[in-house]
Amino acid sequence: MANETSETETAQLSLREADTPSSKLQLFGADEPLELDAGTSLAPWQIAYETYGTLNADKSNAVLICHALTGDQYVASTNPITGKSGWWTRMVGPGRPIDTNHYFVICSNVLGGCLGTTGPATTNPATGKPYALEMPVVTIRDMVRAQARLIDKLGIDTLFAVVGGSMGGMQVLQWAASYPERVFAAVPIATGARHSSQNIAFHEVGRQAIMADPMWEGGSYIASGTRPTKGLAVARMAAHITYMSDESLHQKFGRNLQDRETLTFGFDADFQIESYLRHQGMTFVDRFDANSYLYVTRAMDYFDLAGQFGGTLANAFKNSSTRFCIMSFTSDWLFPTSESRAVVKALNAAAANVSFVEIDCDRGHDSFLLDVPEMFSTIRGFITGSAIARGIPIPGGSN
Amino acid sequence: MANETSETETAQLSLREADTPSSKLQLFGADEPLELDAGTSLAPWQIAYETYGTLNADKSNAVLICHALTGDQYVASTNPITGKSGWWTRMVGPGRPIDTNHYFVICSNVLGGCLGTTGPATTNPATGKPYALEMPVVTIRDMVRAQARLIDKLGIDTLFAVVGGSMGGMQVLQWAASYPERVFAAVPIATGARHSSQNIAFHEVGRQAIMADPMWEGGSYIASGTRPTKGLAVARMAAHITYMSDESLHQKFGRNLQDRETLTFGFDADFQIESYLRHQGMTFVDRFDANSYLYVTRAMDYFDLAGQFGGTLANAFKNSSTRFCIMSFTSDWLFPTSESRAVVKALNAAAANVSFVEIDCDRGHDSFLLDVPEMFSTIRGFITGSAIARGIPIPGGSN
Repeated sequence: MANETSETETAQLSLREADTPSSKLQLFGADEPLELDAGTSLAPWQIAYETYGTLNADKSNAVLICHALTGDQYVASTNPITGKSGWWTRMVGPGRPIDTNHYFVICSNVLGGCLGTTGPATTNPATGKPYALEMPVVTIRDMVRAQARLIDKLGIDTLFAVVGGSMGGMQVLQWAASYPERVFAAVPIATGARHSSQNIAFHEVGRQAIMADPMWEGGSYIASGTRPTKGLAVARMAAHITYMSDESLHQKFGRNLQDRETLTFGFDADFQIESYLRHQGMTFVDRFDANSYLYVTRAMDYFDLAGQFGGTLANAFKNSSTRFCIMSFTSDWLFPTSESRAVVKALNAAAANVSFVEIDCDRGHDSFLLDVPEMFSTIRGFITGSAIARGIPIPGGSN
Repeated sequence: MANETSETETAQLSLREADTPSSKLQLFGADEPLELDAGTSLAPWQIAYETYGTLNADKSNAVLICHALTGDQYVASTNPITGKSGWWTRMVGPGRPIDTNHYFVICSNVLGGCLGTTGPATTNPATGKPYALEMPVVTIRDMVRAQARLIDKLGIDTLFAVVGGSMGGMQVLQWAASYPERVFAAVPIATGARHSSQNIAFHEVGRQAIMADPMWEGGSYIASGTRPTKGLAVARMAAHITYMSDESLHQKFGRNLQDRETLTFGFDADFQIESYLRHQGMTFVDRFDANSYLYVTRAMDYFDLAGQFGGTLANAFKNSSTRFCIMSFTSDWLFPTSESRAVVKALNAAAANVSFVEIDCDRGHDSFLLDVPEMFSTIRGFITGSAIARGIPIPGGSN
């Protein structure tokens, strides 16, 4: 347990240092605008990314990993600022299910994010000041458009696989829908084809907490030299509860007291769960930008894949030849299995190639980031089988 | 649906007017201190309450209704300030399951509350200023102690029934454990014998939201002439999500847009659920005191009935002759049926008289406040049967 990282605990970036991340940067100039769903475009813009492994000669072994709400591009490498290891090193690396000895893995910071890719903290060329709320609201489809432009620049036609959990899974589904011919295999984990009312509600609470903080300054806190750390911490605390299950909270914390034997009859953190949440909130503000939190949560709320295809989800996958592996977790109440089943149903209706696994795990939504052996073995099997189908030479892959 | 009230929507009190509520007030002087679990005592103190129906000659027909976190004493009468009808008029009133033609119903504002009973907004006699955080932290047991003192003053020895949902149900369980000989029948609904780690977590988010608001002023906002309305609204929004089920949110709001046909690509309330939550937050601050929210949530967090009895819940009910009717709702994820089952198990272990019903209802924790026919018929049956057992003359009660 102690060595496990969750979505919460991955990277402890200093945002000031993150303004000049160590990542590879792909720049797009004023003549290469990114068209956005908002009806406007962004130029110039840039995308920060990491790669692992080697692209083979026919460029058939590229795997794109899509990160979740507060994730980053350091999927399998030490974050140079925090010194913490990558957020999915169990999944991606030499000998791992997504084996960097065989695959060329790409992971980019999402559009609207705060670790190098253009987002609300980026300088607005029109004003010379940070965009703040002048940044157009972006969507999951916009994030995927930006990734596709990166993939273009890398000279890759078809991705062998696109893999991600939670908001990363939304991007996977969007990739499969927007660029079916460019995705050989897709692995959306612990996700759904739309954000539910309850999920929008939790995000709205987080946004209201940020915007209620007077230090937010109508979004222009960077220009004001302030930071809405209290509001952002509250937002993170609320969200963090949704990443765990009732059962895992009970097992991990129960009603255990924090460094004391009796209740204090006060409002300090008597219970371990309180202390834990406060810590999650406080450390989060050191690694994440409040406006990025607004933008990226908004992108998730806006996600409704069926809505892009006349209200019928199956239309999103019509004539798709992508191979899908859908995965959910029994205790995930943020993206319950019913959301995955709706995707599976639509894929079946579209006669797509789909396998579906609901994994029995009591650790809630964050399960996809944790040590869940059945997830790794399932993905290892799916990826290896897909590699054979794709004709990627994998030692032992034909066994 | 339109006429239904939920825990959120019951009363729209103006807090300033509430300082002089129309309720009956029971005053306890400096010579009548209330002993508290915190190891201190409160004096003078007062309790505000409402009554309905008539106490019979042998005082055997008194029913105490215990309200939930943000409830009030106006269970079955128009709130004189808001003009809104009582929060449980479906349950309590002439011809209702708890029939005020037959029973004498008492409902008091909880200790720590803000509608007339002593709480953090009450003037501290030692300073002449509102208690604020000088008010001792109170517990569910303290709330029940205060109620018992009121019942003493009313000259009632044994309550015919004690009934309540959520935090009201905690009080019911505490009554049965603290004063078994004074409770003939007990109806704890949608509750548990302890507050879970997840529930503490949600409360802690709410408290942090309030305390993060600079208008909170370290708790002394009344003296400062400020009010932490933004923080309190965020707290209420987060809590409100937990009172509904994913399914009921989906049915009620889904992804419907608010007064518009397309997304705005901004941070206004695009979705109905956002608008609804914002409304809940904004109206709540008009009727509830922020410090009371801290105190009453803390009381719930501290509740652990087994902890009062050496860690064994069954000991809380040893030799109890109280008749119990335990009730839970299938879609209640805040106090899931498993919490009720733990109480039933303990009651069975104590050889108590217990019936248990899990009601199939998709409307979440707030179900106990809504129009759920099976709940009413079950409680009507249980109350009538108990009245017969107690020898209370009920017309038709012997049929």
